[in-house]
Amino acid sequence: MQSYQKLEERFGQIMALKQIDSLLDWDKSVLMPEAGVEQRARQLEVLNLKIHEMQTDPKVGEWLAATDGKNLSPWQAANLRVMEWLYTHATAVPADLVARKMSQETRTEVIWRKARAEDDFSIVEKELASLLSIVREHAAAKAEKLGTCKYGALMDSYAPGMSVADVDAAFDDVAAFLPSFIDEVLATQQEPLPLGAPFDVNTQQKLCQQVCNLIGFTPDWGRLDVSLHPFSSGIGNDVRITTRYKEEDFTDAMQGVAHEAGHGFYDRFTPAEWQHQPVGASQNMGMAIHESQSLSIDMQLGRSLEYWQFMAPHVQKAFGRNDAALSPENLHRHVTRVSRSFIRVEADEVTYPAHVILRYRLEKAMVEGKLDVKDLPAAWMESFRTLIGTTPPSNRLGCLQDIHWYFGAFGYFPAYALGAFIAAQMADKMKKDIPDVFAQVARGNVGVFTGWLKDNVQAKACLMTPPDLVRDTTGKPFSTYYFKKHVTERYLGKTYEGSEPCPATSAHAAPRRA
Amino acid sequence: MQSYQKLEERFGQIMALKQIDSLLDWDKSVLMPEAGVEQRARQLEVLNLKIHEMQTDPKVGEWLAATDGKNLSPWQAANLRVMEWLYTHATAVPADLVARKMSQETRTEVIWRKARAEDDFSIVEKELASLLSIVREHAAAKAEKLGTCKYGALMDSYAPGMSVADVDAAFDDVAAFLPSFIDEVLATQQEPLPLGAPFDVNTQQKLCQQVCNLIGFTPDWGRLDVSLHPFSSGIGNDVRITTRYKEEDFTDAMQGVAHEAGHGFYDRFTPAEWQHQPVGASQNMGMAIHESQSLSIDMQLGRSLEYWQFMAPHVQKAFGRNDAALSPENLHRHVTRVSRSFIRVEADEVTYPAHVILRYRLEKAMVEGKLDVKDLPAAWMESFRTLIGTTPPSNRLGCLQDIHWYFGAFGYFPAYALGAFIAAQMADKMKKDIPDVFAQVARGNVGVFTGWLKDNVQAKACLMTPPDLVRDTTGKPFSTYYFKKHVTERYLGKTYEGSEPCPATSAHAAPRRA
Repeated sequence: MQSYQKLEERFGQIMALKQIDSLLDWDKSVLMPEAGVEQRARQLEVLNLKIHEMQTDPKVGEWLAATDGKNLSPWQAANLRVMEWLYTHATAVPADLVARKMSQETRTEVIWRKARAEDDFSIVEKELASLLSIVREHAAAKAEKLGTCKYGALMDSYAPGMSVADVDAAFDDVAAFLPSFIDEVLATQQEPLPLGAPFDVNTQQKLCQQVCNLIGFTPDWGRLDVSLHPFSSGIGNDVRITTRYKEEDFTDAMQGVAHEAGHGFYDRFTPAEWQHQPVGASQNMGMAIHESQSLSIDMQLGRSLEYWQFMAPHVQKAFGRNDAALSPENLHRHVTRVSRSFIRVEADEVTYPAHVILRYRLEKAMVEGKLDVKDLPAAWMESFRTLIGTTPPSNRLGCLQDIHWYFGAFGYFPAYALGAFIAAQMADKMKKDIPDVFAQVARGNVGVFTGWLKDNVQAKACLMTPPDLVRDTTGKPFSTYYFKKHVTERYLGKTYEGSEPCPATSAHAAPRRA
Repeated sequence: MQSYQKLEERFGQIMALKQIDSLLDWDKSVLMPEAGVEQRARQLEVLNLKIHEMQTDPKVGEWLAATDGKNLSPWQAANLRVMEWLYTHATAVPADLVARKMSQETRTEVIWRKARAEDDFSIVEKELASLLSIVREHAAAKAEKLGTCKYGALMDSYAPGMSVADVDAAFDDVAAFLPSFIDEVLATQQEPLPLGAPFDVNTQQKLCQQVCNLIGFTPDWGRLDVSLHPFSSGIGNDVRITTRYKEEDFTDAMQGVAHEAGHGFYDRFTPAEWQHQPVGASQNMGMAIHESQSLSIDMQLGRSLEYWQFMAPHVQKAFGRNDAALSPENLHRHVTRVSRSFIRVEADEVTYPAHVILRYRLEKAMVEGKLDVKDLPAAWMESFRTLIGTTPPSNRLGCLQDIHWYFGAFGYFPAYALGAFIAAQMADKMKKDIPDVFAQVARGNVGVFTGWLKDNVQAKACLMTPPDLVRDTTGKPFSTYYFKKHVTERYLGKTYEGSEPCPATSAHAAPRRA
């Protein structure tokens, strides 16, 4: 037990410094004077050096080896598992390789910004190729330590416990489903009325603060601010989200708030007594599960007709209008409009997974050495046509749009789509548990929806691995069935004909609690 | 040279972490959700533990011992001197005593808040006595290391290089000067017209942002926000100040801005190439010099008639009024009104040093074991009558008003008055160098005033010790002559009859540059 206590002390300190790191990032994006960017980079570098030292300290390895999991409570045992995961990832890669990767990431990102601005992939091709080669070394080092393939080793940081085989199967299934489904939605969907822009930004800000309050993201522990790209940050009693305001479409800001509040609830509602240990920090569940929580609010809740039946009167009051454009039905139609668009972050709920699957296939091929960086633009175009049925007119609207690869984040993308699938699976179970949940939402009782997530997902923090959590929460293994069912019902108004997976065996249901 | 380079690397990291510490404090005071206070305390604790470890690491001592100052440039040599000062203070006190002091500080502060709210000194008497006893141990440990007396060892953190004998002489001199001077000012000063409250807070906020721009504290590197007590924070390209807004008096917010901007200029205008080393961080000059910079803007500049000749039209425009109450003369009269008030932070320029001298004498007696905590309230009343000519009606308006002692900060107070005296000495030299400086201010050329401070004080950062800086900048040793001269001219409109000190010998003028 003594070694376990030393681990708790050490990782408690590491968590505190990581919380500081995320506050510094928040500040940088929200309100730091622009000129401060260089000194902030230096502060972050020093802080992360300290975190790295504390995490890779050989003493941590000794304490981990000396701790006998059998004497621990289930939460302590899970905490130990998360610590081992963090330690393994932190120590898998030699320090000089970490440093080389960081330096190449910084260089590549800067040049990517230029290449994107000028819509010229050739500007960044060489730098990306150098970065990829370092990423592959990095992946090889991790793969050896984790006993998995290169790409799987990278993905393990973002979707721990998910195998490449699982993801391949899920993505192949959805990739086969989507093209004809998209055709059918486009052929039948009703165009919304134009919203009637412009919408005053101050009014939008007040409306969005009201939306926060209405869905339970309250100012006593949660801030709403503005940044170029919406994001969430913080933990426990100090959670912060941002959104951005566009005069032409207030729903963009509102969905930004819904999405980030979903992340924020997860950061807020893990058990207070574990929040400052690895097991209580929701980030340690990985991005796939975290994204399932944001998409639960943004997509499952926030694009339902019932949500807009509740929200429309507030929207109408805010803008002093109650015409047909601001009716619940039209707002719902607006936020569920499907199109073959080029930019992932602007994509609708239906085509979104296709954007992700495309990136997954390309980045996996790059990491496996099967796709050269020089062939990336053509491969992108080709894959886009197959999956989404059109071709982007430029690389700026293609393989130059996302920062991830140019900042060395290979293996991150799948989490976005996995999160969407898991959110659908959870919402399906929620509707079984609480048949009138959406009727309640229409009456403003959003807490019924968010409360289910809190009790069934967020309160469990990292007690289970992500696949185990899905089984435990929904009674079924992870499956794409629920996403296909959900979009069929929402976008075609039809019953989905696929067959539901068998229940997870009880042996799998909650193995960590045994 | 190698050991010096190791010191630069280590202290560069320490400075970065200290910058982070000050950002966390800023955030806590300005916008953190209240519920986050406990987790923030934990973050600060862990961060400061790391800073302490890095600062007291025996390797630092070895590098300091191994560095030969003769091979260093003047800036490097000064950097080494500041590092030694930091290391000496950090290592002087054993770790367990540091921990005991921190824990007793936290406890005493909490109880002080209760005692102040209930205006009952007896509630906190025992805790303060315990804290004082730890402070005395602390002072003894530092005194031994620094080779000075206990109180001097504490004061060295806030006014490095100033001796207790210097401060005694200065304070005795001003304490002898003030009582009859205050009588004379009170007998002759003209009462200002009431300002005509209330003043809309939003309008005040816009006005204060404008004041920032007008005096050169600009948003590309400087933020203005709101907090309960005004303060400044940050360094280099990211400096942040706060003020507070009272409906009944907009000059309170404006002077808060002027005061904090004065600190902010110092944090901004040290040489960029040294800003992230100890020698470039203005805090390392100690609070006396730092306060001289805030008081230069708040008092010397910001309460001059010429400043209000420049500002009045902006004030009038902001509030849409140009009556006699908002005339330059009346505003000037308002911000230079003298009274026998009880609260230090609300005191005017003339009585302010008396508030500080009182605290200095009492805290020195406490640290020296000549005054018991139980006798503090009576000693306060007695000393207040002698120095300011009246007696506070309660301890809440007496010895319970300031947080300093109840948070263990003994030795801090003198810096406030020393800063006022130094600001007067610098302004006197500035007027000799630029005879029309205040005429320029009246025309809006505030940059002439702030530029002199930048070139003659701020750009020198910690190249010299505080007493040497005063000599170098003004050509005279530190003296109270200039403060007495300044208040005689401003508050009595008379020529001061005292005799100016002799010039500093050239040997003293710039010893660090030789």
